[in-house]
Amino acid sequence: MSPKVVPARGMRDIPPASFRRRQRVLDLIRGAYEDHGFAQIETPAVEPIERMRSGQGGDNESMLYEIQRRGLDPEAPVLPRDAVDSALRYDLTVPLTRFYASNRAELPEVFRAFQTGPVWRAERPQKGRYRQFVQCDIDIIGEPGILAEVELVTATLDALGRLGLLDGASVRVNDRRILTDLLGRAGVPAELQARTLITVDKLDKIGMDGVRSELAEAVGLEPGVVDALTGTLESIGTETPLAEMAGGKAEQAGISLYDLGVVAQAVTEAFPQARLVFDPTLVRGMGYYTGPIFEVSHAGSGSSVAGGGRYDGVVGKWLGRDVPACGFSIGFERIVDLVELPEDESPRVALLCPAGADPLEVARAKRDVTRALRDKALAGGVEARKAAVAIPVTLPRKPSGAFFARLGEAGYTHSIRLGQGLEELKAL
Amino acid sequence: MSPKVVPARGMRDIPPASFRRRQRVLDLIRGAYEDHGFAQIETPAVEPIERMRSGQGGDNESMLYEIQRRGLDPEAPVLPRDAVDSALRYDLTVPLTRFYASNRAELPEVFRAFQTGPVWRAERPQKGRYRQFVQCDIDIIGEPGILAEVELVTATLDALGRLGLLDGASVRVNDRRILTDLLGRAGVPAELQARTLITVDKLDKIGMDGVRSELAEAVGLEPGVVDALTGTLESIGTETPLAEMAGGKAEQAGISLYDLGVVAQAVTEAFPQARLVFDPTLVRGMGYYTGPIFEVSHAGSGSSVAGGGRYDGVVGKWLGRDVPACGFSIGFERIVDLVELPEDESPRVALLCPAGADPLEVARAKRDVTRALRDKALAGGVEARKAAVAIPVTLPRKPSGAFFARLGEAGYTHSIRLGQGLEELKAL
Repeated sequence: MSPKVVPARGMRDIPPASFRRRQRVLDLIRGAYEDHGFAQIETPAVEPIERMRSGQGGDNESMLYEIQRRGLDPEAPVLPRDAVDSALRYDLTVPLTRFYASNRAELPEVFRAFQTGPVWRAERPQKGRYRQFVQCDIDIIGEPGILAEVELVTATLDALGRLGLLDGASVRVNDRRILTDLLGRAGVPAELQARTLITVDKLDKIGMDGVRSELAEAVGLEPGVVDALTGTLESIGTETPLAEMAGGKAEQAGISLYDLGVVAQAVTEAFPQARLVFDPTLVRGMGYYTGPIFEVSHAGSGSSVAGGGRYDGVVGKWLGRDVPACGFSIGFERIVDLVELPEDESPRVALLCPAGADPLEVARAKRDVTRALRDKALAGGVEARKAAVAIPVTLPRKPSGAFFARLGEAGYTHSIRLGQGLEELKAL
Repeated sequence: MSPKVVPARGMRDIPPASFRRRQRVLDLIRGAYEDHGFAQIETPAVEPIERMRSGQGGDNESMLYEIQRRGLDPEAPVLPRDAVDSALRYDLTVPLTRFYASNRAELPEVFRAFQTGPVWRAERPQKGRYRQFVQCDIDIIGEPGILAEVELVTATLDALGRLGLLDGASVRVNDRRILTDLLGRAGVPAELQARTLITVDKLDKIGMDGVRSELAEAVGLEPGVVDALTGTLESIGTETPLAEMAGGKAEQAGISLYDLGVVAQAVTEAFPQARLVFDPTLVRGMGYYTGPIFEVSHAGSGSSVAGGGRYDGVVGKWLGRDVPACGFSIGFERIVDLVELPEDESPRVALLCPAGADPLEVARAKRDVTRALRDKALAGGVEARKAAVAIPVTLPRKPSGAFFARLGEAGYTHSIRLGQGLEELKAL
């Protein structure tokens, strides 16, 4: 018995059936994003270590896959940190902002980018989470106004719609500036605001009582401040449609909604059924957001299926001048198994050949059966589906039911034996 | 002036136009391979270091991107080699054989795999070569007979045909066993055969005189052995159609062609125009080939555009029992700029908006123009192409010719100004 051969720790193989599903889901998303003018780009998986340790990635920077410098003296011990010169990307946002800085001369003034690709994080392995996973981002760089937010939310809802995830979806909306206002009015000192937000962000996990005690004990806010802040959050609630908030409730509560009302209105021009709610407790983890923030939740999923927001300060980090930016991400790995895909309609014919069949005879039969299938498809046959190709499949000595079941799982729809005429084609 | 922001050394960004081209070429290849029953799979970019240093990769193992173990003591110096636990894959063949070993219980007896994805090699940076590049492989695992070779060559020619690269293509064919026979008959000692092959492999670079002197001086063959070997190679030549060789010439020269004649015949059943020539000097670098080997050259390209062969011993390395295997690769990075693609037929309409336009007005115009375009497309309009979507594009204060030229480059086919009716749609 040889030892078990497995992928690298925390990583996984994608076998054919799973690959097909992922590809089809991705194609649907890509179609939506292309229709909304997002152009796909790609950046290398590897970025120089300074960029990956710039502080922009928060916790993700502690989960880096760091790459050793080439050409080190193999006999000379080094400190681990001194031995690396690059790392695998942990998200697609840092590479995008770097891409924009590197290529700005060739890019339109307002650049709509679409990216999809693997990212790597050395998280503690756990069920259903992998250390290499796919992200799926759209971003608009160079648009200072909320037109960017409107376009991003609209394109995301269009994509979710094509995936059958629009019904039951709800867009929770907040604005980092509203959070700053609320914290200031409740009396949270400036130096405790970041930690306060981290605690508020845990609301769905620890509940309002948990938030209250953590604010008092761990963050160290005064009891009056805790009461003022949590009182306001509770009085607003997390489920008010943005349209109603914009219609007066916000002003009554003394809250400026900035442009959120207009965003909601413009999005519902395109998707009248879209549900946008104001959620003052929405924080979103990353520290770099500067304006509106969004999260799309779906009844079928425990967690959010998409999210994003404005991050005006990040591109400037590489470029030396501020450039407005706003981005949105679909949680590809979360939704890929949630989506109900229609049956794959392409026919696939197994040309069943005994082991050791004459390759010449197989080649001729493949050609002839394929031709006959195409002629038949043109005439509206083979169940009037797309023209099929015959694929040689080696027949076991005693073909079992399991053998034919497996053919079906592998996507074969019909079978025919070597030497048979098309009239003996069988559906699987 | 901020410092120049560039990708990691030897790597590159893929901007929108280039991405579109790559995607379209890949889709054509994928379509061909799917039609021939190859199922796409994906493996992680990272593999454990033992596998990446197993000796199977030849020179590629000296160009590894090695990944540092997580959780090292940051204060304790270590030898570079002891600090790594994994590496980025340098090809798709090692991961495929590992995939087969890991997943064999769920795979069909004869498994047709298609893979496409990035691989990494820390080569010395040079023009047109990058340290991250895409490979595109098909493999048949579990088929001992030449049906595998026939199917792989046929599928590859089909793919090249869809890319417009079949005319002018020529398949050079050899067999590792023929090489072993030739070397033995010329009197090359067993222990010098591997080095002899490395030298013969350089024929197209250093010419037959170069091969002769390297065999005598560097490899150390006797003059009589050098003459016998190079004499046979020259007398056969590298351009004889395999059909003619199989028809008697080979036997006259005392060479067993094994099954190559049948492979050629079966391939021409599917592609009568295919040109297969016997090239006794074809070696292909990798040491793991055990049977027929192939290389497809194309008049438009200086080097080969595809290649492959049988490697029966490799899968067993992980699995503990031998499994026959044969693979083929299209040189994606070599052909992607060679392919002439038809014009992209999808219309894309720029909805030109002045900077700071009312987002609500833009959202309504986008919806209305898109709807009108779809109605028109259904009625056979917008040049009877696929329905278009309007995409808001910010208009510079003084739109120049360059602005509109750039819109065209970005794939926009029409423009319309915010507030205009569809009758004012302009082709770009």
